[in-house]
Amino acid sequence: MQQGYAAVLCVLAVLGLEAAAPGECELTRLLQDKLQYEMRLQYMKHYFPIDYTVQVQYEEVLRPSNITRLRNGTVSEAALRYLWFHVSSQAVLRIREVLPEKHPSWKYTQELCQLFDALGEEYSKYRQTDVETVVADLVKLIYSAGAESRSKAVRPKALLDNCLKVMRMLFGGPCRWEST
Amino acid sequence: MQQGYAAVLCVLAVLGLEAAAPGECELTRLLQDKLQYEMRLQYMKHYFPIDYTVQVQYEEVLRPSNITRLRNGTVSEAALRYLWFHVSSQAVLRIREVLPEKHPSWKYTQELCQLFDALGEEYSKYRQTDVETVVADLVKLIYSAGAESRSKAVRPKALLDNCLKVMRMLFGGPCRWEST
Repeated sequence: MQQGYAAVLCVLAVLGLEAAAPGECELTRLLQDKLQYEMRLQYMKHYFPIDYTVQVQYEEVLRPSNITRLRNGTVSEAALRYLWFHVSSQAVLRIREVLPEKHPSWKYTQELCQLFDALGEEYSKYRQTDVETVVADLVKLIYSAGAESRSKAVRPKALLDNCLKVMRMLFGGPCRWEST
Repeated sequence: MQQGYAAVLCVLAVLGLEAAAPGECELTRLLQDKLQYEMRLQYMKHYFPIDYTVQVQYEEVLRPSNITRLRNGTVSEAALRYLWFHVSSQAVLRIREVLPEKHPSWKYTQELCQLFDALGEEYSKYRQTDVETVVADLVKLIYSAGAESRSKAVRPKALLDNCLKVMRMLFGGPCRWEST
């Protein structure tokens, strides 16, 4: 009886994750507006020195091709969204770390951070045990001190380009966005 | 007779160099306004990523201590100003090289460049043979491809800090600036 109850709870939790909550859709829609091309170009390219890169961990770069590979390995959509959230919020922090408060891109990254913070509340109810091991391990690596991971130099705009592309892959369907 | 004439010309040229022409005083005064602390701080520090550096040649860093050393080696004041001009205009170019045209510091560096271009006309009448060998060699190194020289990572603001400090050392007296 106890076991059956646990199983039902687990199924509900998984269903909940699969379906993208209304809060997630609303917040990622706001993120999409904030990540439009003109803004990424201005704040993440024109306002940085030419060829400037930030150092990130290897796992902090999440490209559409990574998602395709993980999907083929039958990772659930919910776990992929969970991964995207952790990678992307970390990427924005990496960019913020290199900006003085009076830098003209600072406020932009702050607004992105606020949206990710709000999104974090949506994800805070899920524990790492709710997602596939491969995803749980990746998320753990992102927050580890980085000793175990290789480092990579990435342009700030490239980090946000990936964030947006992967977000569209993962939320476009469940949130019924028009193709953009 | 021919020799005597050449000697007189040489003395005149040296005298002309020693005395800082009115054009030099006017232009360096404008440069001083443009290099005031608030502007250097905003355009060269706040508008760059934290700890950002540009690569310059070893000879492209000219500090007050270098001037003191060269003065002790009895390099003429005129030759020191000639050296300062070449080092500083090159430093501004190094900063400009890393900035996209839409960067918020771009216009500022353009205005500095225009002042250095105007100052260049003042110096164009002097040839490298008019200055002491030690200075002529330093200036030659600045414009060489850099193969012979060591490279150095310097913050953009530090380049302009040095430019201003040395300018005050070299032009403050001859141009009768109030102590600033």
